[in-house]
Amino acid sequence: MDRRGFNRRVLLGGAAVATSTSLSLAPEVSTAAAGPRTAPAGGETRHMKLYIEELADGQMGYGLEKGRATVPGPLIELNEGDTLHIEVENTMDVAASLHVHGLDYEITSDGTRMNKSHVEPGATRTYTWRTHAPGRRADGTWRPGSAGYWHYHDHVVGTDHGTGGLRKGLFGPVIVRRKGDILPDRTVTVVFNDMLINNRPAHSGPDFEATVGDRVEWIVITHGEFYHTFHMHGHRWADNRTGLLTGPDDPSQVIDNKICGPADSFGFQVIAGEGVGAGAWMYHCHVQSHSDMGMVGLFLVKKADGTIPGYDPGDHGHGHGH
Amino acid sequence: MDRRGFNRRVLLGGAAVATSTSLSLAPEVSTAAAGPRTAPAGGETRHMKLYIEELADGQMGYGLEKGRATVPGPLIELNEGDTLHIEVENTMDVAASLHVHGLDYEITSDGTRMNKSHVEPGATRTYTWRTHAPGRRADGTWRPGSAGYWHYHDHVVGTDHGTGGLRKGLFGPVIVRRKGDILPDRTVTVVFNDMLINNRPAHSGPDFEATVGDRVEWIVITHGEFYHTFHMHGHRWADNRTGLLTGPDDPSQVIDNKICGPADSFGFQVIAGEGVGAGAWMYHCHVQSHSDMGMVGLFLVKKADGTIPGYDPGDHGHGHGH
Amino acid sequence: MDRRGFNRRVLLGGAAVATSTSLSLAPEVSTAAAGPRTAPAGGETRHMKLYIEELADGQMGYGLEKGRATVPGPLIELNEGDTLHIEVENTMDVAASLHVHGLDYEITSDGTRMNKSHVEPGATRTYTWRTHAPGRRADGTWRPGSAGYWHYHDHVVGTDHGTGGLRKGLFGPVIVRRKGDILPDRTVTVVFNDMLINNRPAHSGPDFEATVGDRVEWIVITHGEFYHTFHMHGHRWADNRTGLLTGPDDPSQVIDNKICGPADSFGFQVIAGEGVGAGAWMYHCHVQSHSDMGMVGLFLVKKADGTIPGYDPGDHGHGHGH
Repeated sequence: MDRRGFNRRVLLGGAAVATSTSLSLAPEVSTAAAGPRTAPAGGETRHMKLYIEELADGQMGYGLEKGRATVPGPLIELNEGDTLHIEVENTMDVAASLHVHGLDYEITSDGTRMNKSHVEPGATRTYTWRTHAPGRRADGTWRPGSAGYWHYHDHVVGTDHGTGGLRKGLFGPVIVRRKGDILPDRTVTVVFNDMLINNRPAHSGPDFEATVGDRVEWIVITHGEFYHTFHMHGHRWADNRTGLLTGPDDPSQVIDNKICGPADSFGFQVIAGEGVGAGAWMYHCHVQSHSDMGMVGLFLVKKADGTIPGYDPGDHGHGHGH
Repeated sequence: MDRRGFNRRVLLGGAAVATSTSLSLAPEVSTAAAGPRTAPAGGETRHMKLYIEELADGQMGYGLEKGRATVPGPLIELNEGDTLHIEVENTMDVAASLHVHGLDYEITSDGTRMNKSHVEPGATRTYTWRTHAPGRRADGTWRPGSAGYWHYHDHVVGTDHGTGGLRKGLFGPVIVRRKGDILPDRTVTVVFNDMLINNRPAHSGPDFEATVGDRVEWIVITHGEFYHTFHMHGHRWADNRTGLLTGPDDPSQVIDNKICGPADSFGFQVIAGEGVGAGAWMYHCHVQSHSDMGMVGLFLVKKADGTIPGYDPGDHGHGHGH
Repeated sequence: MDRRGFNRRVLLGGAAVATSTSLSLAPEVSTAAAGPRTAPAGGETRHMKLYIEELADGQMGYGLEKGRATVPGPLIELNEGDTLHIEVENTMDVAASLHVHGLDYEITSDGTRMNKSHVEPGATRTYTWRTHAPGRRADGTWRPGSAGYWHYHDHVVGTDHGTGGLRKGLFGPVIVRRKGDILPDRTVTVVFNDMLINNRPAHSGPDFEATVGDRVEWIVITHGEFYHTFHMHGHRWADNRTGLLTGPDDPSQVIDNKICGPADSFGFQVIAGEGVGAGAWMYHCHVQSHSDMGMVGLFLVKKADGTIPGYDPGDHGHGHGH
């Protein structure tokens, strides 16, 4: 692969670059070896098993193995073109379901009681999710692809909209990638659910660790009743599909604060500490009462030697317990 | 017109395609005949009459004929460059007005009491709305056009911001199209007004019918006091001017859930059932208490034979009465 | 330089133009004299002094001179590449700080108590903000620049998130410009802080004056507890980085109403009265109870002769005192 080929691939992978001839010729630099990993084309058919369980503390979760459910549920990653069959076993004593945002599914995989696509207690049901790459329709119009930062959740527990299941933890992240999308070193999930983050007690994170230079992907989901504003200290992202600007011609606003409401989701990648260095960088809801009540976590960006300047885990005054 | 010419026109009609040489040469397919209808250039001067009326149930509405007011009011469609003179007759016993978002109007058409542009009880007033295509100003900067999913509403009843008129139903949709914008087969209007949709009783829709493959345009408007998140099952749109990606270079996020507050408006087109098939697809506010209280409707997508798999109008368990 | 060359400069300055061959070949020409002023390249190192003070009425403000603090604090403008050292003197009897959004700063300039970067009563501390132009990283990926409509605020007074300081007025606007960004004739700042605008009493503006044709830049910031929708009568903007469409290929939605929550910020430029003429144009929060309670101001656009048609400062009926 020659330099130009590589750079062009990266550019296109960025999702939406205006490829004028001059631009694609421009990057005559030798970064072929150093480029980030990118997503492959999809097209695979995959199968997985998912358990819906009640947790010891009364919460509910999705899990890949029996007795190992988590809140949020496991990250499900697909590439555009993939099909996923998910056999869901409901080990609880109430009906529950799996409803996904953004992906293609027939009405039998809707996950609603109205469409009889929920899972009775003790029963098993297979949901099928499909994804597709963008392309031109027969009539010449452009069809968007499935790529995006999406999520799945229960639509049945408590009410016909899953209000009880959502409150107790039945939600999780889904990422669909486009061929050429830049792959991160690590992905972290933040769910603002009512006044909690990932259903943890207030003032207890979660905190996420990284080393300066790591490419860390964030997927941020909101659930419940309230609106929030997600804010990060020292890091920013683009308000578009990938959270990454596609290049100099992308007009998207770069932000570090975003209003979001229930079932909204977005994602982005940051280079940990880029231009700002190591540190205990807060992320929090910026609605004042929400941050004061503990909707705060830390992005702990370490130097290569593992230290974090100015950070004392046992003595930081922001009321953020661990 | 040869094939390439047609395809190029479609592309440009999509509003914002980066036309690199390779892209505009690419679509060498014979879809000339199959392409969607597109909006013509504007430039017409039109006149219409609008009545502001109290409805039998105490609500208020705008209507094109006396005694035929509706909530929401009638859809007003314009093409960039059009001028519309609206003679408004207020048949009520309180002052009311017509205030529009997004369009060009002189201060005498502001529709506010402050600017003495309201309509006294029993009186008539002509409001003039103008629209314009995008273009370059004398100083070389770019002036946006009027195209968009907009709306009109009262600004006088109850308070100087029309809080009473809005609550009772004095609002309606406006769409301004750009030359080349794709025209839908059908347009539906959803207004989240306080905790109701289109001022209907909770748990009673409205439902919208379509057949798989129909190009259905949605215009979504919010009014009142609360924020909402508009969500659709099984269908998505782009978070940009048209709700349609302009092509592979459009970086906009594709979403199926969007936070919105009073007087926000947006629109999009979906191909009914595309990639997912027929079904009773819910759309609803995703704020949990709002959906539980009945801010839910159905997008009833039928097969060609008129059936909807799994849908029983008399027996669906989501608490959605008809 | 001939006109076409100038136009290209303007285009590129607009930040994100898709350069199709025909456009990118265009640049031959020269209208240097007629174009708007644009931002220069940055790269300067600047120093300023900022005082944090308690105001006579019990509010708190940032100021460039002792005893001259204002709410909002002074507008700080930078060009991408600039570094700013701000010596902050806290003249109050409680600790306070300076926390900025969007810019590059090391953890020692975080402005949080957790990172021991606040200013004790009577003390002085220097904060350093850096900015950078966009560019390609060593790995070929695109790094966004710092340009944007940002803001600074206290993070310490009252709570560890500065809830008390924010309520009392410790906030201000920051604009970072990219080389070529169009410069306005005037910039105005609107802060929706809880139920007030710029901490003024309800129903008392602020009002902003301009003459038809002026290029007026608005920076809109939200703080506190509530969500709002910012609406302007008779003027619109693009929902992207600059608020200005970059040209015909920019897919951004043009809006006149935008939902925003605490710490969100955005900006745009309008040509006062463009296509609509002079008038007393309201801007207000469109949440009905908020506008009714007085979150309203006027954009007073005068004719060249200084008059405003239909506007009587002493007798306008929207309950908006001066």
